Amino acid sequence: MILHGYWRSGAAYRVRIALALKGIAYEQVTHDLRTDAQASDAYRALNPQGLVPALEADGDVLTQSPAILEWLEERYPSPALLPEAATDRTVVRAMAATVACDIHPLNNLRVVQALQRDFGLDAAAVQAWMARWMGDGFAALEVMIARHGRGFAFGDTPTIADCCLVPQVYSAERFAVDLTPYPQLMAAVDRARALPAFQAAHPDRQPDAG
Amino acid sequence: MILHGYWRSGAAYRVRIALALKGIAYEQVTHDLRTDAQASDAYRALNPQGLVPALEADGDVLTQSPAILEWLEERYPSPALLPEAATDRTVVRAMAATVACDIHPLNNLRVVQALQRDFGLDAAAVQAWMARWMGDGFAALEVMIARHGRGFAFGDTPTIADCCLVPQVYSAERFAVDLTPYPQLMAAVDRARALPAFQAAHPDRQPDAG
Repeated sequence: MILHGYWRSGAAYRVRIALALKGIAYEQVTHDLRTDAQASDAYRALNPQGLVPALEADGDVLTQSPAILEWLEERYPSPALLPEAATDRTVVRAMAATVACDIHPLNNLRVVQALQRDFGLDAAAVQAWMARWMGDGFAALEVMIARHGRGFAFGDTPTIADCCLVPQVYSAERFAVDLTPYPQLMAAVDRARALPAFQAAHPDRQPDAG
Repeated sequence: MILHGYWRSGAAYRVRIALALKGIAYEQVTHDLRTDAQASDAYRALNPQGLVPALEADGDVLTQSPAILEWLEERYPSPALLPEAATDRTVVRAMAATVACDIHPLNNLRVVQALQRDFGLDAAAVQAWMARWMGDGFAALEVMIARHGRGFAFGDTPTIADCCLVPQVYSAERFAVDLTPYPQLMAAVDRARALPAFQAAHPDRQPDAG
């Protein structure tokens, strides 16, 4: 299995965590997000979006981290990263989507670069933009985790919600977003970050870390 | 079943399509996105994010359209909106995520309002911003649909990819985004829009359409 990623990509980080939790061995190919290298013609032939991550597995190229997480769960069901009951699965997926659809897309590198280049936003304005969307999303996740978490974001074992949440908090800390209003969320994140699988997936531990 | 939505919400539109394709009866409660009504305390008690859609079903409140689509598929498996083979399911989910994670989040009402209010973007700048992200995503989807579509976005029956794509094209047409570079995508969209279920879910056909 080959993971096309980048050490600081939050979406690639999610997939690294899931691979580590499931104990799947893989190789990494890095695509430097700062230089558009991921959008080379060769890479676009694999992944038409030219984004990371993409996972080469079983002779296919899988794209989009939410889809890859679902594939990993279907193909390697143990340990499970989704609960069994239909409603519980939906809660976990909703937590993951809060990160993947409502927080991360507004704060990732290509969007921040566009804000800086097209509208001349300075560092302070970019930080305020990021803090705004992270704050909205984290506030909702704090309520959901208080309702459904028992150690982890949902229940007492890691799920795809933790796979998405830990990378988003990594980004929040990097950009100095205040996390003190979210104690339940941070307790779940700290619990997850103590696990070897989450540690192995950390950006600083990747071969392309700079 | 009660769908909390808004006629022009692209995310609620996705869920209406899936409900209609599966022949599920439901009531609608509208939350006017232009006036923050969806963020009332009463609604936030149901959905901590205060966004639409939310689906009240089986005594629970389900949130986040990608999670709701997966729940509908698990709870009402026929007609299937995901293919059977694991890789095929991943392709469909990747198409859906291209809309739900990479296009829609950058163009929805709360983000456009923030760009206008915080950075003073005028109508032309907003239109250029929207066209940029829709163009990036549609270009990738055009390649994916050319590879995998046989009438619909994937294969020869509707999937959750079409549930996400049709509302995004509705938005693109509303904001005058050029769609001529995406003939395969538009052929799939036109095929889907000809179906009664897609027609019943159209914004203009909803009770709160203004």
